[in-house]
Amino acid sequence: MNKLVECIPNFSEGRRQEVIAEILSAIREVAGVKILDCSSDTSHNRSVITFLGGPEDVKRAAFQAAAKAKELINLTTHCGEHPRMGAVDVIPFVPVEGVSMEECVELALQLGRDIAEKLDIPVYLYEAAATRPERKNLANVRKGEFEGLRDTIHLEERKPDFGFARVHPSAGAVAVGVRSPLIAYNINLATSDLGIARKIAKSIRGSSGGYPSIKALGVMLEDRQTAQVSINVCDFREVSLPRVFETVRREAARYGVNVCGSEIVGLVPQEALIDTVEFYLQLENFQKEQILENRLQ
Amino acid sequence: MNKLVECIPNFSEGRRQEVIAEILSAIREVAGVKILDCSSDTSHNRSVITFLGGPEDVKRAAFQAAAKAKELINLTTHCGEHPRMGAVDVIPFVPVEGVSMEECVELALQLGRDIAEKLDIPVYLYEAAATRPERKNLANVRKGEFEGLRDTIHLEERKPDFGFARVHPSAGAVAVGVRSPLIAYNINLATSDLGIARKIAKSIRGSSGGYPSIKALGVMLEDRQTAQVSINVCDFREVSLPRVFETVRREAARYGVNVCGSEIVGLVPQEALIDTVEFYLQLENFQKEQILENRLQ
Repeated sequence: MNKLVECIPNFSEGRRQEVIAEILSAIREVAGVKILDCSSDTSHNRSVITFLGGPEDVKRAAFQAAAKAKELINLTTHCGEHPRMGAVDVIPFVPVEGVSMEECVELALQLGRDIAEKLDIPVYLYEAAATRPERKNLANVRKGEFEGLRDTIHLEERKPDFGFARVHPSAGAVAVGVRSPLIAYNINLATSDLGIARKIAKSIRGSSGGYPSIKALGVMLEDRQTAQVSINVCDFREVSLPRVFETVRREAARYGVNVCGSEIVGLVPQEALIDTVEFYLQLENFQKEQILENRLQ
Repeated sequence: MNKLVECIPNFSEGRRQEVIAEILSAIREVAGVKILDCSSDTSHNRSVITFLGGPEDVKRAAFQAAAKAKELINLTTHCGEHPRMGAVDVIPFVPVEGVSMEECVELALQLGRDIAEKLDIPVYLYEAAATRPERKNLANVRKGEFEGLRDTIHLEERKPDFGFARVHPSAGAVAVGVRSPLIAYNINLATSDLGIARKIAKSIRGSSGGYPSIKALGVMLEDRQTAQVSINVCDFREVSLPRVFETVRREAARYGVNVCGSEIVGLVPQEALIDTVEFYLQLENFQKEQILENRLQ
């Protein structure tokens, strides 16, 4: 079986297209890695690149990209709306296929060590790779941003996981982490009552007592006069799409409202779709090798 | 998008492994074609090979396999339980991805012409490629088998679609056709009452007034003391897996019986799984390019 890891590094450059192009080239140089997406935001002055490949290739590509970002991006002159502490700001790995979270954590450790030793940039491990509970949350790691970290990195609680306790003068520091694949999933209600969508969102999200790996908001689709429960499924292995859907459907019924549709925004791992089929068809003994297209790889 | 066609030729040889190996080699020689399965049955004295690839490659591989079968299999000395009329007996094409039934019919016509002209074997077109309504059904095409066809091929109603009206002395004749992907799908009932499974099978299958593209039987899983509705979904684009499942579930409820599980046997096209997810999650605007793994191809 193929091992597949996704990597979604964020870079503190969303305006100079030539810089972004050079970073993309550095990634592309690693054969076996495929770039799925690159989106830049000028007001954030930030770019997010998504690429996929085998664990070793992905690690190598992430390192090359970090090296290129160090060379071309200077944090002392960077400004933008989005919080940031490094030229390459965060590097999350996501296990996609045939790879465990633990293997990705090992990958994050190796990359972190490499970046610290070879690029002289301090590295913090976050989310599933975190070495301290408070570092699971990226916001805590990046507190104070580049400028604030420069002054506090000598404190014990801000000590990096790899590298010396000083930020790189121009490239700052970087957070390397591991997280589950996130699925952006929206459920539309057959009502224009935003209040109902908000109540349902509250009932399912972890922050108000619902599923810990679910984030949710009630929003209004003005053009369709449709209230929507907008959801981030942060770990579909913990809470599957059908469970989210059925929970929302039942909560909506409590207000006499039907679900009129749903939408997956962006990418979704095949496994999440297989889970859904298994759930509803009460499927036994299904193997993903039974999918015709998978035989071609 | 990749164009993918599946081909499942049946050969009148299920005993001499060296013959089957040579046919497999002939297929393998065509780069771009991937062999998914080969199963031989000694009592049938017949082998079924499944391979996949782009339309042109698949056609070429099917021709090479037919040529090799002509060279190595002699129908005058062949015997086995399964009806047969040719060394290569039937060659069905199945559109899997990015290819229409019509394109596959065109492919069948080209292959048929090649086999008749270059191998001197008469060719009948069947199922979706049939040129006469009675030839849609393979059983009509193969009536009388090799020996019977030899004596009747001169009759107008048995005239082949390509080639002269005489069977090849040792290689017989071949049926080339096009059909939709078939999904073998079984639904288990929470009862040991075989009669209920039989009644449900009768209610859904085309031959007794149900869905035209569904074949179904009631069978007993002795080891589990479970009655099962064993189903062939012959065209999942006509009747989807969720519609089959929901129909069976509703019919079972009429007898106070629940569905306790279901099973897909063998291969299933990704599209059939996407259909299922779309049905149950009421999914809007889903594209198969949103599946992470599909981005790699």
